[in-house]
Amino acid sequence: MSSPRVSSRQPAASLQTPEGLFSAIRAKGSFLCVGLDPDPDRIPHAFGEGAEGMENFCKAMVKATHHVAVAFKPNLAFFEQYGAEGWAALERVVEFVPSDVLVIADAKRGDIGNTASRYARVMFEGLGADAATVAPYMGRDSIEPFTAFDGRWTILLALTSNASANDFEFHGNTPLFREVLQQSQRFKNADRLMYVVGATRPEVFKDVREVVPEAFLLVPGVGAQGGTVKEVAQHGMNDRCGLLVNSSRGILYAGGKEASQEDAIRAAVRVAEDLAAQMGAALSERDLL
Amino acid sequence: MSSPRVSSRQPAASLQTPEGLFSAIRAKGSFLCVGLDPDPDRIPHAFGEGAEGMENFCKAMVKATHHVAVAFKPNLAFFEQYGAEGWAALERVVEFVPSDVLVIADAKRGDIGNTASRYARVMFEGLGADAATVAPYMGRDSIEPFTAFDGRWTILLALTSNASANDFEFHGNTPLFREVLQQSQRFKNADRLMYVVGATRPEVFKDVREVVPEAFLLVPGVGAQGGTVKEVAQHGMNDRCGLLVNSSRGILYAGGKEASQEDAIRAAVRVAEDLAAQMGAALSERDLL
Repeated sequence: MSSPRVSSRQPAASLQTPEGLFSAIRAKGSFLCVGLDPDPDRIPHAFGEGAEGMENFCKAMVKATHHVAVAFKPNLAFFEQYGAEGWAALERVVEFVPSDVLVIADAKRGDIGNTASRYARVMFEGLGADAATVAPYMGRDSIEPFTAFDGRWTILLALTSNASANDFEFHGNTPLFREVLQQSQRFKNADRLMYVVGATRPEVFKDVREVVPEAFLLVPGVGAQGGTVKEVAQHGMNDRCGLLVNSSRGILYAGGKEASQEDAIRAAVRVAEDLAAQMGAALSERDLL
Repeated sequence: MSSPRVSSRQPAASLQTPEGLFSAIRAKGSFLCVGLDPDPDRIPHAFGEGAEGMENFCKAMVKATHHVAVAFKPNLAFFEQYGAEGWAALERVVEFVPSDVLVIADAKRGDIGNTASRYARVMFEGLGADAATVAPYMGRDSIEPFTAFDGRWTILLALTSNASANDFEFHGNTPLFREVLQQSQRFKNADRLMYVVGATRPEVFKDVREVVPEAFLLVPGVGAQGGTVKEVAQHGMNDRCGLLVNSSRGILYAGGKEASQEDAIRAAVRVAEDLAAQMGAALSERDLL
């Protein structure tokens, strides 16, 4: 093979605009993103071991929850643990996701232009993802190679859900995360940007919505990290929903390590459907359904 | 295979302290880091095509230049282009680097603690790298999982060499890059930190050295990006050298796309040896040889 890899996955064409995404959210009554963080220490034994077990488990979770999910978000770190074998599993998991559901490659890459272009191709062409998370530290020329891709989403870290977000993301009179929001809105193809805003600081959504009223936000931190759908919706929702709320561990490992495949899936579906129901209620409340 | 991958590469034990690194620099009379950015559009045809050509080319460059290099820095983006096949090539290239030369996995990862721990294992155990570049945006808990590894280097982005470094890295009254230097020096195992400081702003080294007089700096931006060894040494060197200066494209593609393997290698060696000679002169000038 002489050229870089190109995935056979068809991009989720209908989900490449805010309107398309909003339609999908209305159709499913949910703005759930299921995070695929396949942790070898927590995957139920019943799915098998190693990279193969990881792949089986992820595919089972995709199959079981895509009726309530508008996005799946594979976390590349967990696949890279298995080296080349893990990367091959990742490629197959992405190709397994139905083309009416967004795939977000959670890679948080960020590098100079020359390298950023490669990473963008890796995520959008090589893996066939519809969206990729990107770290903003290095500025415009590390981000625009991603937004150059027509019909793909670039999801910029703004205010993350971890405790240490305080260390640098609030730095400056204008907090850094706000500066990132403001400046990036002037980058090329800024309409292809979404932003990561953690559920763990619901009070900040007001600030965020002042700067980016229209943008979709990818919201981690619901569940295991303590945020709630209700608060996120209350503070972050706009008139096209504008939210993708992620849950990973809370869904994936609901059945515990010793569960049979059937029980693990049943438990995951229960949590995913419960989150989706909370989301449906939040949409109804704002007459968005 | 049921456990995450562990590379067979022996870590560069003698290079795990500043003293050890300084000894290696004195022994070679050079503080050169050769960046391995294998670009399919630029690798001479003679090395073959695709992931295999990339691997052949990188190994040839390692073999030809390790006598003047204290580090090799594979850029993961270029390998990931080839998906699982590229990752396998990367694993073999890292294992090919002699254990008296540092391998820096240029990955610029940065994620919440749970995921950062995975990435740290990927870089240090899975790939067998001696060092990894890390993006600071998300703060302490995204960095300490890397510095937790005894005998490995965590190289934090501070002031990068790209034009857009101005966008966010100078944000705030205390510029963000300086805040990153200051705060990170209080993180756990801060003695395992190095910092990326671009050669394209030599005047900033004075600022950097005020905050981190002892730390090693990984300096990109010499050559293709316009910085010079002389200026970097003048402003950035400390009494244990404290510098690793990187050149990637300037060395790798010195022979051009149409060169034979022999000519491509000869041209690369000439550039690498010339840079090393400049470094030797800079070390002599400060009586560090």
